[in-house]
Amino acid sequence: MSESSSIGIVAPQIAHFTEPLPLKSGEVLPQYDLVYETYGTLNADKSNAVMICHALSGHHHVAGKYAETDKHAGWWDNLIGPGKPLDTNRFFVIGLNNLGGCHGSTGPSSIHPQTGKPWGSAFPLLTVEDWVTSQARLADYLGIKQLAAIVGGSLGGMQALQWTISYPERVRHALVIAAAPNLTAQNIAFNEVARQAIITDPEFHGGDYYAHKVVPRRGLRIARMLGHITYLSDDAMGAKFGRKLREGEIKYSFDVEFEMESYLRYQGDKFAGEFDANTYLRMTRALDYFDPALAHDGDLSQALAPAQADFLVISFTSDWRFSPARSREIVKALLDNELSVSYAEVTAAHGHDAFLMQDAHYHAILRNYLKKIKVGGQA
Amino acid sequence: MSESSSIGIVAPQIAHFTEPLPLKSGEVLPQYDLVYETYGTLNADKSNAVMICHALSGHHHVAGKYAETDKHAGWWDNLIGPGKPLDTNRFFVIGLNNLGGCHGSTGPSSIHPQTGKPWGSAFPLLTVEDWVTSQARLADYLGIKQLAAIVGGSLGGMQALQWTISYPERVRHALVIAAAPNLTAQNIAFNEVARQAIITDPEFHGGDYYAHKVVPRRGLRIARMLGHITYLSDDAMGAKFGRKLREGEIKYSFDVEFEMESYLRYQGDKFAGEFDANTYLRMTRALDYFDPALAHDGDLSQALAPAQADFLVISFTSDWRFSPARSREIVKALLDNELSVSYAEVTAAHGHDAFLMQDAHYHAILRNYLKKIKVGGQA
Repeated sequence: MSESSSIGIVAPQIAHFTEPLPLKSGEVLPQYDLVYETYGTLNADKSNAVMICHALSGHHHVAGKYAETDKHAGWWDNLIGPGKPLDTNRFFVIGLNNLGGCHGSTGPSSIHPQTGKPWGSAFPLLTVEDWVTSQARLADYLGIKQLAAIVGGSLGGMQALQWTISYPERVRHALVIAAAPNLTAQNIAFNEVARQAIITDPEFHGGDYYAHKVVPRRGLRIARMLGHITYLSDDAMGAKFGRKLREGEIKYSFDVEFEMESYLRYQGDKFAGEFDANTYLRMTRALDYFDPALAHDGDLSQALAPAQADFLVISFTSDWRFSPARSREIVKALLDNELSVSYAEVTAAHGHDAFLMQDAHYHAILRNYLKKIKVGGQA
Repeated sequence: MSESSSIGIVAPQIAHFTEPLPLKSGEVLPQYDLVYETYGTLNADKSNAVMICHALSGHHHVAGKYAETDKHAGWWDNLIGPGKPLDTNRFFVIGLNNLGGCHGSTGPSSIHPQTGKPWGSAFPLLTVEDWVTSQARLADYLGIKQLAAIVGGSLGGMQALQWTISYPERVRHALVIAAAPNLTAQNIAFNEVARQAIITDPEFHGGDYYAHKVVPRRGLRIARMLGHITYLSDDAMGAKFGRKLREGEIKYSFDVEFEMESYLRYQGDKFAGEFDANTYLRMTRALDYFDPALAHDGDLSQALAPAQADFLVISFTSDWRFSPARSREIVKALLDNELSVSYAEVTAAHGHDAFLMQDAHYHAILRNYLKKIKVGGQA
């Protein structure tokens, strides 16, 4: 194993697209920006590009820092860098913020070109398919015909899977991590409670809160607190917080009594101050809608028939949001199509969030799989 | 198996208590009412009384109807009646609404005797121990020295367990169903999200919303929607709703798209129109606080050392809120004390709510256990 280090200082870039984007909903996005970052160098035959798809609250800042003084690096910095499992000495890595996002790509808080005001409620609902189309256009923009790999966890894994259906010839490898072929009723239910918390917040104003100079902070906070419960396993929460009391004894009040409560409130407050509620609503709806088998009478194998990529599917034993059984459905459908599939069910305590963690076994699987991907000469 | 029928028309009664009730929090409830119902006849030696403890949103109306035209019978009517598993031909059954409730017993929406206004935020936080004390006083009031059985599911099961610790000589049998010796961090987390939804609702007014002629309906609705997710299993939701679309096709909106959403909204709306938010807060806190082992360095066996009752413990395989493993902790601690314990882990698809359902196997277990309870001659 080579020495690994951070990719160092990185900077976001913006790609502007003027060709209208027709969406699955029937609406059309007239023009849009995608904010993205790249790490490593695109080689001469452009055969070493890897695109990273983000999950619900992710963005384009996947690795590195913007300044040495940054407290945190990109959200998947433990995976990506020189000598890391996704080795930027070999690969040219692209991270982007999805359309509808709130980190620089065109989204509900962006200014509508016609009105000069934020899109707000008028911003269309997007699907995983729409994102993949916009990502393919970003690849075009960067002159990349075929990705060495598409990589994503959770909602990002759904995008990786969709790439192999939408653009089978444009993706050589697909890494589908902690994902599912669609949401269960329970998954949808959690999303719906989160959305209702936001939508019924008096400061939501039907999605046009920007004009009122307020944000539906209360609703977004509840949504995020709830999300955090589903990202962690019951056991991980037990190990981390258990029934630990904040002040050593019960106070008989509705203030924080348990450490668990303190953690959730902190996470909720932090998120509500940073994230856009309209983006949150749209990201959860994209999750709900994703279901490639729907157009094939529920037959996932048929839905995946176009796929040509070589697959690595990874799930985590304690992930109850997207359980290993859901990943096995994907694996089964891929095998029905006689595709090459590696599948790993990683024993991990952290629940759904395990896909973001630095776990030796998990990272060794990624490292070994990625090492075998052939790329042409360096530029 | 004898013919079973409904207990028929029943009526609530009110017991007024003037002796102040010292609470675990250190506060004292100066006087209070308990609303209750009874079914069957108390026998001459008063040896056939069974008390039913309710769960989070339950109340005293356990069986029968108030009028023939009532659409629904009491919440455990499938269990209690002539010839039913808890046979009112043999037993005198008592149901009550817990203190802090919103169905007739003294609670936050009751008028404070000194101020002439609703208690609101001034109503104390109650514990399972406090409830059991008040329930023992109700037994005194009814002239009952010893219960043939104490019965409860979920939070009600915690009360049944506490009875055997607080009043070991007053309870001959304890039926502890779908319960746990305390909440896990995840359980607490769900409660906290529900509470925060209520408390941050602008119409909560610090708990004194009665004076403003509003209720924190939005928050209570979110709390209930969330609760419903935890009452059902993932599989049961999948079987009942799956990904079924309300209108057969996706509308690309935040209105109801999936049947699952429609169900949750209906349950949330219904509950928010009926239940008191201050009661909901207190019920969830009582759940959080329950932990008999806490005073014994976490040793549940030591906590249960006073118990003398004969126990029936029941759990349900798909209950992820209070999983079978939690019931087995109780069983283990009871066996450590060389108590007589029957334990059944019922294979059931419905999750936590299974304890309220009419399941043949489950009801047969209850019937057979209750049949063996000896009672004296009829009055």
